[in-house]
Amino acid sequence: MTEATNQARGGAFGIEHPIGVAVLGMGNVGTEVVRILREHADDLRSRVGAPVVLRGVAVRRLDVDRGIPAELLTTDAEALVARDDVDLVVEVMGGIDPARKLILSALNGGKSVVTANKALLADYTGELAAAAEGSRADLYFEAAVAGAIPVVRPLIQSMSGDRVNRVVGIVNGTTNFILSAMDETGADYTDTLAEATRLGYAEADPTADVEGYDAAAKAAILASLAFHTRVTAADVYREGISKITAEDLETAAAVGCTVKLLAICERMPGGERLSMDGSAVAAPGEAGSTPAGKDRVSVRVYPALIPRRHPLSSVNGAFNAVVVEAENAGRLMFYGQGAGGAPTASAVMGDLVMAARNKFYGGRAPGESVYAELPIAPIGDIPTRYHVNLQVADRTGVLQAVSGKFAEHGVSISTVRQEGHDEGARLVVVTHHAPESALADTVAALAELESVTSVTSVLRLEGTEE
Amino acid sequence: MTEATNQARGGAFGIEHPIGVAVLGMGNVGTEVVRILREHADDLRSRVGAPVVLRGVAVRRLDVDRGIPAELLTTDAEALVARDDVDLVVEVMGGIDPARKLILSALNGGKSVVTANKALLADYTGELAAAAEGSRADLYFEAAVAGAIPVVRPLIQSMSGDRVNRVVGIVNGTTNFILSAMDETGADYTDTLAEATRLGYAEADPTADVEGYDAAAKAAILASLAFHTRVTAADVYREGISKITAEDLETAAAVGCTVKLLAICERMPGGERLSMDGSAVAAPGEAGSTPAGKDRVSVRVYPALIPRRHPLSSVNGAFNAVVVEAENAGRLMFYGQGAGGAPTASAVMGDLVMAARNKFYGGRAPGESVYAELPIAPIGDIPTRYHVNLQVADRTGVLQAVSGKFAEHGVSISTVRQEGHDEGARLVVVTHHAPESALADTVAALAELESVTSVTSVLRLEGTEE
Repeated sequence: MTEATNQARGGAFGIEHPIGVAVLGMGNVGTEVVRILREHADDLRSRVGAPVVLRGVAVRRLDVDRGIPAELLTTDAEALVARDDVDLVVEVMGGIDPARKLILSALNGGKSVVTANKALLADYTGELAAAAEGSRADLYFEAAVAGAIPVVRPLIQSMSGDRVNRVVGIVNGTTNFILSAMDETGADYTDTLAEATRLGYAEADPTADVEGYDAAAKAAILASLAFHTRVTAADVYREGISKITAEDLETAAAVGCTVKLLAICERMPGGERLSMDGSAVAAPGEAGSTPAGKDRVSVRVYPALIPRRHPLSSVNGAFNAVVVEAENAGRLMFYGQGAGGAPTASAVMGDLVMAARNKFYGGRAPGESVYAELPIAPIGDIPTRYHVNLQVADRTGVLQAVSGKFAEHGVSISTVRQEGHDEGARLVVVTHHAPESALADTVAALAELESVTSVTSVLRLEGTEE
Repeated sequence: MTEATNQARGGAFGIEHPIGVAVLGMGNVGTEVVRILREHADDLRSRVGAPVVLRGVAVRRLDVDRGIPAELLTTDAEALVARDDVDLVVEVMGGIDPARKLILSALNGGKSVVTANKALLADYTGELAAAAEGSRADLYFEAAVAGAIPVVRPLIQSMSGDRVNRVVGIVNGTTNFILSAMDETGADYTDTLAEATRLGYAEADPTADVEGYDAAAKAAILASLAFHTRVTAADVYREGISKITAEDLETAAAVGCTVKLLAICERMPGGERLSMDGSAVAAPGEAGSTPAGKDRVSVRVYPALIPRRHPLSSVNGAFNAVVVEAENAGRLMFYGQGAGGAPTASAVMGDLVMAARNKFYGGRAPGESVYAELPIAPIGDIPTRYHVNLQVADRTGVLQAVSGKFAEHGVSISTVRQEGHDEGARLVVVTHHAPESALADTVAALAELESVTSVTSVLRLEGTEE
């Protein structure tokens, strides 16, 4: 039957019917996609089996010289998508609307779609996948997570015979650039953000990046693929990096750690709880444990301390990395450029060649797999370790009072470090794993203590062997 | 038409026709594949869309208790492959024969094949791919390179819209275990190999690993995929690690390096020459340069010094890592467990699920892509850097004589270090990039020098910025 398709397209008769491509959006990524389509037409033709022809590019304004023939440009994206000679649509315009409507039009018309739109996917994958399924078109989105780094395809395909237990990634280049720079220079957050903006690593409105929305969308996508469960952005617990201080990085360094914005997707096996490194932290029936027999999923984004010997700690600047831990594969790590026009276009083009081959040979991309339908565990249930920084009165009994509050809430202390200061002392407490809710309650109780001047910072600690 | 296949199989009527699987070989990997097929049958059914049923396992001897029902075992692999209810064949027996014949039988019968057999693929991919093409079956082989690490699929699919310039990997766990241990303990090669054998990291006959044959087979596979060119094991220049001494690791450490067995696949653009880090080392028309306009491919396996700051230098023990450099994606790195029953079985199972889905939904794996047909560059043409260790007479003029020989052959010296000894001195010379042939001639000429007592070692230096 693949032969029939091939023949219908003329392949078997030596007539090459071209695969027509529409590109929606001509920002950094779209510009590179258009360039590659034009510069590497010969290679693409050989790899697809048929010519891949750019039919048009939808842009917002026509009065800009984009270095390509004017007749390829249009402001009518809907008409471009609907053209009979368009077989494939590349959506690199971003945002929810009109991207969503255009992708649905394409898929409903049987046209395959390649998109880099993480915000859209994080909330609407179900709807888009259903449209693709209905018309037997492909929906590919490797470029939506971690730019050029193949992680979507490995999760969907390579891990399809394994059980993924955990995905932990640095998936936002802007925040990683800022945290790396703060770690290196000792500068504070505001100055470093300003520098990142100046260098083009942060957008004019950096909210989506620095508050973790971008990473949360990617975490939702990764978790959906890893656990065969539909996870949306609303399911992701999220904290950004805008409250991270130079002092946080300094105290992190003092304990052999750095601070990274992590996207963490974890399977929490029914009846026991796992820490990031796989050690069980609560037995069935214990406080905060999962009902026996039913796995749950935790998806969260927050800045955390990680030891400098952890593989993710050396991922610096605008680079991304994703660690995947699976039952049989063990720990895998994928590293590379997570953003930028050319790297993201590389991922788009890989998807485009696959989608074009499917059009030509009659194959299909794997559809959405959400059969497991695992429930999302609330953040309060998640076992983590806390690194708590306290300003305290420098007098006898403080340590006893502080450690008493931890004990009261059932939180076990790993280490305490006391540093003298002119006006009081600083206590740095690192806990063992405990449920988030118990840790949050402990911190609230500490703030009430008379001998505690202030809770300077509370950061989670990840990636330790406990 | 996928619908038609689906209907033919009963999918559209809610009747699930199972996908029958035959496993050939029940060593470390086969045992794990059989375990996963049985333990995770429910997940596999959900992911494929139909039950995946183990029809039988071909073994050499029946008188061993393998913990599975005896009726599943057979010594007649050919009959198992030929069974009507077998749709998919997993070949994990290794070796050329009878694996080759069995795989060909399966493919010719329209049955898809998943194999981990690098030695077979390195020499016979053309023949196997043609058989798969002829009957429109799938040939998958993610497990043949770097165990659980997805690198075959990313190269075939994710990089299909990019231009790969270089693949450099640590792809043999045995040799990496030995070199890591030598680096850490200062022990010599023989003792470390004995220890590796005792711990199960080296086979009783370690030749295939320590002499680089295994890595060369994997390099041939990687190069074929990266450059869309058929590369066989015979095209790979190969040196093993059996001549590496404790002193080599010591001198490497002295210059901030370690020693790794590298598999290097490089595109050498027509008209210029690139070093491992992408710097051009010879202009068109210069000695050893490529004819203008025609890219060539260099594939080689040898132990080399790499700087400790290079990402591959921290890949230790039995771990594998592969760095892929592409025009648009930039530098990507894939890291994980490169061998072992469960990790390799993870890769096999991913391929198996994809092949089973294709059977059920009517898709097809991408076939062999060798359209580029780039010529293989001979090793003598390859620009590398040498790290040469000489025992010399401790007298005036030695340095002049030695450096004269380098100059005579057009090899530029980067650094020279002289160390006094009781009976003469040691000279360590590190060169800039020069063609292998010029370096080899230089070393031969040095050995003839009266003031040179011996050429203690010659190692290549890779991964520097020059």
